[in-house]
Amino acid sequence: MSNHMVSADISEKLKHFFIEHLPITQFMGLEVESYDGETLILTAPLEPNINDKKTAFGGSLYNTAVMACWGMIYLKTQEKNISCNQVVTEGSMKYLAPVEGRIRAICHAPSEEELVGFFEHFERKGRARIGLEAAVYNDTCVMKIDPETKPAVKFSGQYAILQS
Amino acid sequence: MSNHMVSADISEKLKHFFIEHLPITQFMGLEVESYDGETLILTAPLEPNINDKKTAFGGSLYNTAVMACWGMIYLKTQEKNISCNQVVTEGSMKYLAPVEGRIRAICHAPSEEELVGFFEHFERKGRARIGLEAAVYNDTCVMKIDPETKPAVKFSGQYAILQS
Repeated sequence: MSNHMVSADISEKLKHFFIEHLPITQFMGLEVESYDGETLILTAPLEPNINDKKTAFGGSLYNTAVMACWGMIYLKTQEKNISCNQVVTEGSMKYLAPVEGRIRAICHAPSEEELVGFFEHFERKGRARIGLEAAVYNDTCVMKIDPETKPAVKFSGQYAILQS
Repeated sequence: MSNHMVSADISEKLKHFFIEHLPITQFMGLEVESYDGETLILTAPLEPNINDKKTAFGGSLYNTAVMACWGMIYLKTQEKNISCNQVVTEGSMKYLAPVEGRIRAICHAPSEEELVGFFEHFERKGRARIGLEAAVYNDTCVMKIDPETKPAVKFSGQYAILQS
């Protein structure tokens, strides 16, 4: 089985997690657009997430970004067959420009070295913390965002995994 | 007309704003619980905002808090008959404890002095910024939260008003 197929199978688990456990994501139309083991993109249409200015509501932008990072950790723990509770402990948004179309939040995986340290700490202590960042782009459809493209929103979050 | 009646009339406008402009607030069941000119409480039931741990989803907690502060500015501009665009530019959450029942976000009005400066700046420059804080309590039903009661979530946000 190729890595791509494994990533696709695993991202399917995230989709089912949303459906099973987070009703608000279903109202938002939040979907896993793609995951290749390194980059996770979540997407949601504008309509259910619209505001008075006919752009994306700041709260929906936060939800998409916070779940892109949460989803990255979920997928990495799934890849390691680690069963744990996973929580967000802090989240910060900077709104730089309005999002006028489909919302897309992109989160890159932590470095391999950082992930090794994260999981080693969890094995030793039964808990571990990690910081992740996500960016929301304004209806940008490409898998790899050009580094020169400025995001409309920047998110950074702190997450913890705990023995379940 | 008493101040209380004026505040009730004005908070009705916030309710209608949610209904008219923010569909996600209707899915969440977000409502104006009370407003007395000094304190705004927004509330939402757990069920549509639930997560995998059967507590309130971090994104719904953010949405409730970001809109409590947004709503405070909206109500203060309504009281002054100021028509403007109003946006959130930054938002930060600290999740301190799970919220296991109805979500309640409380925002206190800025001081009179701070509001005067805010509106004077808007009159002169056509734009102004202000920072506000909200706290989310775990199913606490009282209008005035005891200062000793620790919030489950702390939010701080930066907001701007702009000539429309």
